[in-house]
Amino acid sequence: MFDVKTLDRTDQEFIQNKIHNKTKPPGALGALESLALQLALITGKDTISLKQPTILVFAGDHGIAEEGISIAPSAVTQQMVLNFLNGGAAINCFCRSNQIAMDVIDAGILLPVTDERLTMQSLGNGTANFTQQAAMTLASVEQGLQFGADVAIKHLNNGSNVLGFGEMGIGNTSSAAAIMSAITKLPVADCVGRGTGISDEAYAKKVALIKQAMVLHEGKLDTAMDIMANVGGFEIVQITGAMLATAQRQSIILVDGFITTAAAMLAVMIEPNCQQYMVFCHQSQEQGHQLMLKHLNVDALLTLDLRLGEGTGVALAYPLLQAAASFYNDMASFAAAGIDAV
Amino acid sequence: MFDVKTLDRTDQEFIQNKIHNKTKPPGALGALESLALQLALITGKDTISLKQPTILVFAGDHGIAEEGISIAPSAVTQQMVLNFLNGGAAINCFCRSNQIAMDVIDAGILLPVTDERLTMQSLGNGTANFTQQAAMTLASVEQGLQFGADVAIKHLNNGSNVLGFGEMGIGNTSSAAAIMSAITKLPVADCVGRGTGISDEAYAKKVALIKQAMVLHEGKLDTAMDIMANVGGFEIVQITGAMLATAQRQSIILVDGFITTAAAMLAVMIEPNCQQYMVFCHQSQEQGHQLMLKHLNVDALLTLDLRLGEGTGVALAYPLLQAAASFYNDMASFAAAGIDAV
Repeated sequence: MFDVKTLDRTDQEFIQNKIHNKTKPPGALGALESLALQLALITGKDTISLKQPTILVFAGDHGIAEEGISIAPSAVTQQMVLNFLNGGAAINCFCRSNQIAMDVIDAGILLPVTDERLTMQSLGNGTANFTQQAAMTLASVEQGLQFGADVAIKHLNNGSNVLGFGEMGIGNTSSAAAIMSAITKLPVADCVGRGTGISDEAYAKKVALIKQAMVLHEGKLDTAMDIMANVGGFEIVQITGAMLATAQRQSIILVDGFITTAAAMLAVMIEPNCQQYMVFCHQSQEQGHQLMLKHLNVDALLTLDLRLGEGTGVALAYPLLQAAASFYNDMASFAAAGIDAV
Repeated sequence: MFDVKTLDRTDQEFIQNKIHNKTKPPGALGALESLALQLALITGKDTISLKQPTILVFAGDHGIAEEGISIAPSAVTQQMVLNFLNGGAAINCFCRSNQIAMDVIDAGILLPVTDERLTMQSLGNGTANFTQQAAMTLASVEQGLQFGADVAIKHLNNGSNVLGFGEMGIGNTSSAAAIMSAITKLPVADCVGRGTGISDEAYAKKVALIKQAMVLHEGKLDTAMDIMANVGGFEIVQITGAMLATAQRQSIILVDGFITTAAAMLAVMIEPNCQQYMVFCHQSQEQGHQLMLKHLNVDALLTLDLRLGEGTGVALAYPLLQAAASFYNDMASFAAAGIDAV
């Protein structure tokens, strides 16, 4: 279904020399130097070009929410989708602040929203409770990957080359934790966090429920497709498909927090080359997220103790991509500035 | 000379409630929430207002550079000042990328630059070598504080309410390390880092030289004025004065890396209330910087392993201030969005 090419590194030495000859000590721009290298490899050695940055916010509901382990009921997913459409959420503010476009997608929320500003590609009214049965069918997984790919391709065809991913879905940290445990083989307790802020009691229940789910689905969590079907979420599946399509088009993927990183891990499991196109934007306060990033052997650009999702970490980190492009494209070389190389 | 009022906290509860009622779980915006609180306390409870952000880059040379413990000769200070004026340095790129104005100030460089775009307020052609004698006279310190205050006030009078501080000066990490050791009483070895990247041999020599200086000036490092006179730098003194003036005008101070934090510590030593107006933008790779931030009991917004100075950390962090203002000013409340509070 997807075929992601390895990033062409023919120009790597040229790019590294260009960075090295800028008027600064070698390496003095730290993380921005490796970011510039990656962006130049993806978009072109002469000029880093970032076009029409867009954040796709996928919303989906989760059957596990009926267990009462979230801080809010599933109805809040619908309410937040309306908030996104009306421009009132944190992600709207940060996108406006940094001139990033947004597309809000109903990937499968419980209580539908009828609004022409919403991209409708629902896989159903929330997943099944994965502590009791499979979250969705394999057919839904396939449909979801395609839906995700479709919306990504629409934006890439319209001229974007940098897509960020965000999500909204009451209960989705539970799904992300189960996906993480299935992929990393880490104990459930290491993968489960407090979501947006639950009590000790709810936390213990959350761990117990996800352990129960991992037992229920034992032996059926070996492939990305099976993991998504058994413990996934509609928004997570669609993000995975969208990331795969973005990588296939050799464009830039901006990864947000715990849930979108779960999707990123699934995409990398399906097509390992995907990771070369990914920029990890923010390390969430969610405890499992640090272990996910460690598993992927990556560092995030920001650590601001956010625990919100929505793509907020992506929107906040985007100016760092612009800064990397700016120094790569416009900063003087030692020769041009007449400075003694250091 | 300076009189910095404590930040008026009358509206703190109003501001915290306003942040609390935004459509997100309490605390979910992490470091941006405490940033928004600080900015609202400084600029106004109803709307955070950031006006004409400007980075002042102070350049100065250091007599200690003659010891050969830097990666480049003092001539590079002059060359980099020209690079700043011509728009070719990293700080220029980042300021352009984030719409920040810049003012480059000759606070006392070795080889003068004649250029009408340069703000001329030189205290001399570099300080004396502080391993042999006092870096400057007390009269120079007083003059430098006034010069720094003058340029800050000029920008504040022109309508800016947010000033960032950067620097350039071959040898200035040595001065900053000595200032740090004098203020924190930490051993010299904890305060000395590798600057922009020196060898093991140069590092050992740098530690030995600064230890020697601390012995030479023993008993004359008890007040901020004496510290600046004995081991300071012309750019550091002027930054200190500029920060004090900015705080006195109850405007926002953006602190960059190791050298500007040394100036911030001096400003706080003179007027402790200063710190309430400071935002620490980037934690440098320079080892002493983490200890400085710990001493001040603050966290920096970014950790990108930069080791460049110039104000680059300030320029890169500025979009986070805009994002904090954006969510504070424009994000919906639960009541306005019709969302069940979480």
